[in-house]
Amino acid sequence: MRILTESNIEDIALGAAVLGTGGGGDPYIGKLMARQAIRDYGPVELYTLDELADDDLIVPTAMMGAPTVMVEKMPNGDDIINAFKSVGKYIGKPIKATMSIEAGGLNSVVPLYVAARLRLPFVDCDGMGRAFPELQMVTHSIYGISSTPFAMSDERGNTVLMETISNKWTETFARSVTVNMGAMSMIALYAATVKDLKTAAVQGTISLAEEIGKTIRRARIQEADPVKTVREAVGGFEIFKGKISDVARRTEAGFAKGDAFIDGIDEYSGKKLKISFQNEHLAASIDGEVVVSVPDLITILDIDTGEPITTEAMRYGYRVAVIGIPCDKRWRTEKGLELVGPRYFGYDMDYVPVEERYG
Amino acid sequence: MRILTESNIEDIALGAAVLGTGGGGDPYIGKLMARQAIRDYGPVELYTLDELADDDLIVPTAMMGAPTVMVEKMPNGDDIINAFKSVGKYIGKPIKATMSIEAGGLNSVVPLYVAARLRLPFVDCDGMGRAFPELQMVTHSIYGISSTPFAMSDERGNTVLMETISNKWTETFARSVTVNMGAMSMIALYAATVKDLKTAAVQGTISLAEEIGKTIRRARIQEADPVKTVREAVGGFEIFKGKISDVARRTEAGFAKGDAFIDGIDEYSGKKLKISFQNEHLAASIDGEVVVSVPDLITILDIDTGEPITTEAMRYGYRVAVIGIPCDKRWRTEKGLELVGPRYFGYDMDYVPVEERYG
Repeated sequence: MRILTESNIEDIALGAAVLGTGGGGDPYIGKLMARQAIRDYGPVELYTLDELADDDLIVPTAMMGAPTVMVEKMPNGDDIINAFKSVGKYIGKPIKATMSIEAGGLNSVVPLYVAARLRLPFVDCDGMGRAFPELQMVTHSIYGISSTPFAMSDERGNTVLMETISNKWTETFARSVTVNMGAMSMIALYAATVKDLKTAAVQGTISLAEEIGKTIRRARIQEADPVKTVREAVGGFEIFKGKISDVARRTEAGFAKGDAFIDGIDEYSGKKLKISFQNEHLAASIDGEVVVSVPDLITILDIDTGEPITTEAMRYGYRVAVIGIPCDKRWRTEKGLELVGPRYFGYDMDYVPVEERYG
Repeated sequence: MRILTESNIEDIALGAAVLGTGGGGDPYIGKLMARQAIRDYGPVELYTLDELADDDLIVPTAMMGAPTVMVEKMPNGDDIINAFKSVGKYIGKPIKATMSIEAGGLNSVVPLYVAARLRLPFVDCDGMGRAFPELQMVTHSIYGISSTPFAMSDERGNTVLMETISNKWTETFARSVTVNMGAMSMIALYAATVKDLKTAAVQGTISLAEEIGKTIRRARIQEADPVKTVREAVGGFEIFKGKISDVARRTEAGFAKGDAFIDGIDEYSGKKLKISFQNEHLAASIDGEVVVSVPDLITILDIDTGEPITTEAMRYGYRVAVIGIPCDKRWRTEKGLELVGPRYFGYDMDYVPVEERYG
């Protein structure tokens, strides 16, 4: 166990946004929310799964919806607590701790708010090792863990609970209700024991995010090449460098969808990279050919600062580097690729691990 | 208390379809479902509110969605039981009985199925005295009774539970999930004590429906004018007689919406009546002028048999009589008209009680 204070949170939110691969929420709002919680309720204890009892029950908490909306509409805090408590009440057993369901600027620290306010342990793992747009896309699904009892709450005081026959049905219902709630909701789901999570969860995600965040911060101070430093910290590959020339986005069915176009500079001069996204980056293609795709991570970094740029923050003229990062090995299994492989997102192609093209 | 057997159900479903004012579900499917339940589980006991204890808890059960879909997709029975039991489990107190939330060919008998299968009393009242398209449109809303805990289930085994801050929010969320469930769901809602229902519910609806059904049946045997007989039994007024010349319908956001056009015959010859509907009939206009509107009932009867015709059964060439029936007095209060008056449905006009125009 180690204590997380305000100074750790900045690094976690920043580093998690690198793993968030364009999504997972805005790190600035995540930081504000978690900082305030620690100021109001005291520091948070970060536990590894090994430091908890096997039958302890963990319920992850997160924001669901289009991150584009989140920038304008702050959660009020009570909403996520309502969702978390509803699952606990429904199960009728004490919930020992909370964790992140995905890595992302916001969703890595939302549970930190819950942990601070309810004085509960925060667990150093998540269900993706990155961010994904749909609710069933978690390593829990690969191991048969149910997303329900699922609870979602809005800032008005509405709560919706579900018991479904599949995690995909939870996604379907919850997406509709999220749209009704204003394209954003706060959710609690995938209750599981520590024993099950030792197999099903991606461990160490919060510590990894913090390490990445620290690396970016240090690179700035030391005036090192921040992109290279981040790339090395995550074991990634440089895919492209260029200037954002166009971003076409739409908020559709509660998702932020669209394409970003980047004109190459330096050794990429004359080439054009296209990134398609649905909350998160799904595929990067150079001059029409897909070069990196889900489930591998595609991260856009500011060339000068190494800061990850979320899809909603992408703007014309930004000078960026695009890096590809190998995903957790669970995603490369048959079940994993069924859930989050390129075909699920409508790409008629086999998945090629990023290191096979760039390693 | 009196016993309802198979022979009572036919009359109830038929008569309730008159009160269903075009909606409330198909009486044929309702009849099949309730008959089968009585065959399998035995007769049902119909209680008045006065025959129950003041603190007994009643949870109404119903079908939600577009009745057009219901014709093709039978509920499997477990769905409505799941919804009913979920509300009971959530409240954590025994539920004494069930009742209809609205009068309608299907929704008057859905709770009869629940009562038969779970061996519970069925209560002789409802929340409308007619049918309405949206979930918050019940007399319970006028008296501040919450629709939540609300449960909805589909035939696959999915259940969604809600706690909302208003009955309109329940409608919003439940409508979306109903669309996801295939434009139809089975629901349990508006838990209330007998004491509260004595003020808030419309009493005697099931007996009234049975009486109307009996009247239609007898008129056929005695070769009396069936339309006149029904009109007298419900205290209604003849608005129009004619032949259906056109029906424009669409299934939109989980509702069956549209307009039906009727060319006048006999003393109405040369005139055209238009009926606009959203599951139920909302307004009838003759040559462009609204003559009857919500909350009063607009019912279309087959001229020859006196059978009520639901919006989904309306076809070109049918010879029909249109009757207007005064609604329950609760709907004529300020709160009632706010919920279901013509303005709520987009008509820029004041409500004029049907008997003021035709009485």
